Amino acid sequence: VGKFGALMGDTHIGEEMFEWATELFPLCRSITGAGVRETLAYLRERVLPCLRIVEVASGTAAFDWHVPDEWHIRDAYIQDASGRRIADYRVSNLQVVGYSEPVDKEVDLATLQKHLHSLPSQPDAVPYVTSYYSRTWGFCITDRIRRQLAPGRYHVVIDTTLAPGSLTYAELILPGREEREVLLSTYVCHPSMANDNLSGVVVTAALARDMASQSNRRYTYRIVFIPETIGALVYLSHHFEDMKRNTIAGFVVTCVGDERAWSFMPSRMGGTLADSVALHFLRHYAPSFTHYDFLDRGSDERQYCSPGVDLPVVSIMRSAYRGYPEYHTSLDDLSLITPQGLADSLEMLKRNLTALERNRRYRLTCYGEPQLGRRGMYPLLGSKECAPAGRTVRNILAYCDGEHDLIQLAERVGLPADSLYRWIEELASAGLLEEAP
Amino acid sequence: VGKFGALMGDTHIGEEMFEWATELFPLCRSITGAGVRETLAYLRERVLPCLRIVEVASGTAAFDWHVPDEWHIRDAYIQDASGRRIADYRVSNLQVVGYSEPVDKEVDLATLQKHLHSLPSQPDAVPYVTSYYSRTWGFCITDRIRRQLAPGRYHVVIDTTLAPGSLTYAELILPGREEREVLLSTYVCHPSMANDNLSGVVVTAALARDMASQSNRRYTYRIVFIPETIGALVYLSHHFEDMKRNTIAGFVVTCVGDERAWSFMPSRMGGTLADSVALHFLRHYAPSFTHYDFLDRGSDERQYCSPGVDLPVVSIMRSAYRGYPEYHTSLDDLSLITPQGLADSLEMLKRNLTALERNRRYRLTCYGEPQLGRRGMYPLLGSKECAPAGRTVRNILAYCDGEHDLIQLAERVGLPADSLYRWIEELASAGLLEEAP
Amino acid sequence: VGKFGALMGDTHIGEEMFEWATELFPLCRSITGAGVRETLAYLRERVLPCLRIVEVASGTAAFDWHVPDEWHIRDAYIQDASGRRIADYRVSNLQVVGYSEPVDKEVDLATLQKHLHSLPSQPDAVPYVTSYYSRTWGFCITDRIRRQLAPGRYHVVIDTTLAPGSLTYAELILPGREEREVLLSTYVCHPSMANDNLSGVVVTAALARDMASQSNRRYTYRIVFIPETIGALVYLSHHFEDMKRNTIAGFVVTCVGDERAWSFMPSRMGGTLADSVALHFLRHYAPSFTHYDFLDRGSDERQYCSPGVDLPVVSIMRSAYRGYPEYHTSLDDLSLITPQGLADSLEMLKRNLTALERNRRYRLTCYGEPQLGRRGMYPLLGSKECAPAGRTVRNILAYCDGEHDLIQLAERVGLPADSLYRWIEELASAGLLEEAP
Repeated sequence: VGKFGALMGDTHIGEEMFEWATELFPLCRSITGAGVRETLAYLRERVLPCLRIVEVASGTAAFDWHVPDEWHIRDAYIQDASGRRIADYRVSNLQVVGYSEPVDKEVDLATLQKHLHSLPSQPDAVPYVTSYYSRTWGFCITDRIRRQLAPGRYHVVIDTTLAPGSLTYAELILPGREEREVLLSTYVCHPSMANDNLSGVVVTAALARDMASQSNRRYTYRIVFIPETIGALVYLSHHFEDMKRNTIAGFVVTCVGDERAWSFMPSRMGGTLADSVALHFLRHYAPSFTHYDFLDRGSDERQYCSPGVDLPVVSIMRSAYRGYPEYHTSLDDLSLITPQGLADSLEMLKRNLTALERNRRYRLTCYGEPQLGRRGMYPLLGSKECAPAGRTVRNILAYCDGEHDLIQLAERVGLPADSLYRWIEELASAGLLEEAP
Repeated sequence: VGKFGALMGDTHIGEEMFEWATELFPLCRSITGAGVRETLAYLRERVLPCLRIVEVASGTAAFDWHVPDEWHIRDAYIQDASGRRIADYRVSNLQVVGYSEPVDKEVDLATLQKHLHSLPSQPDAVPYVTSYYSRTWGFCITDRIRRQLAPGRYHVVIDTTLAPGSLTYAELILPGREEREVLLSTYVCHPSMANDNLSGVVVTAALARDMASQSNRRYTYRIVFIPETIGALVYLSHHFEDMKRNTIAGFVVTCVGDERAWSFMPSRMGGTLADSVALHFLRHYAPSFTHYDFLDRGSDERQYCSPGVDLPVVSIMRSAYRGYPEYHTSLDDLSLITPQGLADSLEMLKRNLTALERNRRYRLTCYGEPQLGRRGMYPLLGSKECAPAGRTVRNILAYCDGEHDLIQLAERVGLPADSLYRWIEELASAGLLEEAP
Repeated sequence: VGKFGALMGDTHIGEEMFEWATELFPLCRSITGAGVRETLAYLRERVLPCLRIVEVASGTAAFDWHVPDEWHIRDAYIQDASGRRIADYRVSNLQVVGYSEPVDKEVDLATLQKHLHSLPSQPDAVPYVTSYYSRTWGFCITDRIRRQLAPGRYHVVIDTTLAPGSLTYAELILPGREEREVLLSTYVCHPSMANDNLSGVVVTAALARDMASQSNRRYTYRIVFIPETIGALVYLSHHFEDMKRNTIAGFVVTCVGDERAWSFMPSRMGGTLADSVALHFLRHYAPSFTHYDFLDRGSDERQYCSPGVDLPVVSIMRSAYRGYPEYHTSLDDLSLITPQGLADSLEMLKRNLTALERNRRYRLTCYGEPQLGRRGMYPLLGSKECAPAGRTVRNILAYCDGEHDLIQLAERVGLPADSLYRWIEELASAGLLEEAP
């Protein structure tokens, strides 16, 4: 706990986010269709009244891709000869392969098997399977049930529509004093799974609400709720010039709901401002975090950080995609995430944004050390024992050289940027520091 | 010992320095006043006839500071009801708080306690305490004696004057062929303590005498004996332009008297020529030295390396300030330092200066390896066993590329720069090397 | 074995190279004379019909050196009073000091001893000794025999000629589409020793034949068979401008015959394209290789990498000079090297050259990730279990940014460049990649 405990995410907001996640959990989200729309409508109604919801027609090009047909599902099940339901969309939307084409027929067990998905190594988990770009149909069941299936006739019903429609996403632009902007991006295409990614959805919503409530933002905030991959491509293709010119840092918000771990996904080449600020806070508040390699990326940094796009985008996560056993199964349910997990993730991201807002280069207004003693910032008595007292402020001053920005200064001095900033304010109001040009 | 033994500081000069320290020990130095003047006068008379002693009036501005009133002390003691002296300036000048204002009155024990300083964790040590910039008075005693004090009346007498006067420092400028200069700075404000900093005073004096005796200096040497902090600020404020333009390397000479350790304090950002040369010799002759972080600095590099000043100044020390138990107490007496300790520190600094004087970039006068055999610099017989003999000279030649300076060359080849230089001279006189432009 | 086994050098060519080495073994090579000429003639006749053999007259200047007189040997022996031969050139050419001047006289044992060379630490090895630039004579014998020598008269005969003549080397220039060139250099001056350096001679010959057989070379190949040191200096002095302007990578081929180790000698400052490609393949196929320091160099990189010359030349070796006990003794015979050792070394070098030929910077033809699924390069079904399948291709694409060249890309992605290249071809033919300008 220790340093990590110092984050102390707001429990009340944690409970609120958990409630949103609970209410959004049952919706059958996909990369298009009613589930996404209902999810975004819920966020607009409950959290972000200014959320702008955008529809993009099927067939619209996005770089090398096209928006696919829209998918609607009304029902899906497998019934055995005795009328027992082997899989049932109404029990869990994970039980049908996402984007399944419609089917309604009797099949024998051998044929059925070709359309079943289960996880032998996790016999009680229903896997999450999709087939967005290849027409097929299928069901996902636990391996335990699959092994019990007897030869015979099965009635398979998938009542879906796949037809031109649109892809839905939402954005919120919070203007700041500067055109330069910070990107927050989360994805709303995953059906009933909690850590991946209702956690990302609700934390982004809470963070957006918090930033929207601030009256004097330095940076502009671009906050997007999109279907993963195709949504990121569509969004990027529409806003590429602005994002490329203005983005100083960005965060893909995903897998931020549990309390078991902290994880970091760097940008493609690392070393951006987003990398620096994220690593700074992780080192201070979650020093045992897992530092993933970009080779292991798995979300929309795949697009935001692709060659030539190369936005400074990172991901601060808890148990990260592919890094926890429940990932992409029915076991990733609401029992995995907690109000405190959500609250601490929110707090971590807020500290990142606050540090970015405050991030400037400072320099001393005099040569040599200022005389801190007469300003009450240093012990007046020189002795062996009181020497350490003034060390911190002297060390901060030593690196206010117009070169170190707030985050680099904090790294050098060994303090979290938020603790350091109180000193900066005090020293600036004493006239000892000024912003470097 | 091993490599370190190879320093072999001159024992005779070690004894001489120790004698100076012994004679200077009793003087009551402070940042102003008679003690500093007597110390500097002693150095001018005994060691450095050309030393220029400078007085700077109280109130003179130095960046963010002003020279304080001058302090004179004639006597100070605490006497109990029975006439026994609890503290006595005449026994040790550490027993009165530096810059104490005058007092002469009877106080009860509770009042007295507020003006006493002792070290519970070192019950037999008298701490060194000062209050330069806040008027107060106090005494320093051992904690053992303090614990024995009985309730009753105590007569406290401090016979001092605090009045406009001047701050005293000394400098010696040794001109060289170049305007570029090397700074040696030591502080003369500490009363009766040996390692911190009579060791620095006497080693700097011996080093200055040695450099003064050399007829053909490449660099100009700026050697200053100043009160710590305020003296450095005063000196810098008067010579800033010259020092900033000309200084190629500098050394704060302090804590160079004992034999227990070697220590290094880098410049603010590291990587200067001073850092390179100091680290080079420490690695070769004192490989187990302690490499401090600039965050732990404690002497005049606080000013010389402050942002915007940023002179290339480092400190090569033995047991460094705050790094040994006797630091800033009466236990830091002449038993702590030794003639050999002083002599080895002097030798270490001399090698640094010599390497700086010789530090140039060299390049071969031909392509390919020169034919060393016909110049007697390589075995004529090619055989498995004599191969190593010519390795060193070939390796030196391999990095005489006009890019590596003497110190970088020595680092690369794995030899101390002083050993290496003999090869450079031999190769240059054989016409195989020339100075790079 | 593992990854190393993956090299799978061609055994048939290994046998062929071993046969060449066997036939060349008895020739008495030196830096001039009949042995070199016979060796080069053999290579021209058997392997490289286009080899151009060049004679350079004694006295010709080469930077700081001059080509020495040519040395011819007809016979050499020591005979004791009983007529027994203590040393005999006809038994092994190592038994006479290379470049010995002629002698024919009776000497006593004490005088003889001054002209004997043996290795007390290797009592059964005859050392390899030369004296190219200082007129003397001598014999090399085992220390076991030397210790048995009884006082008495010995008849020493060395039937040699040292007179103006020429130094012989050979070169093969294989033109490519580009003027930029790759250097392969090996030395032909060592008498009957196998790993050092008949291995280098035969591997270079096989590699040259292979490159000559390729119809469409990108780079020009400069392949030289020279006497070590003086030959490299002579060659460099004649082709300096071209080599300096055009060389993109070079390899000194030596000690490539045994199977006991892999070794690497970097260029003088490291970090050249030659260093990168060599280290890349060594890391993948021989991860336990020894990485030598340039300070330990011992062959013609001494000249090629000398200051100002600074060609990007490295050495990939097996058991490297000075790094194996048989080095420069009669124990370095044909039993030390193997067809497989030679074949694997050849294969390693070929992969280096192939990677250089293919080394380009690639960039994506679109923003964002291309849609691999519809091109059959990515699983169409999205599920927890099939995710890893498309990871490699996505990671390659992520670093096709116009900055990473093939070798850097392979390093970043963690694949050997040869495996990676198959993906590059597939992605390029799918129109997803193009060469960066």
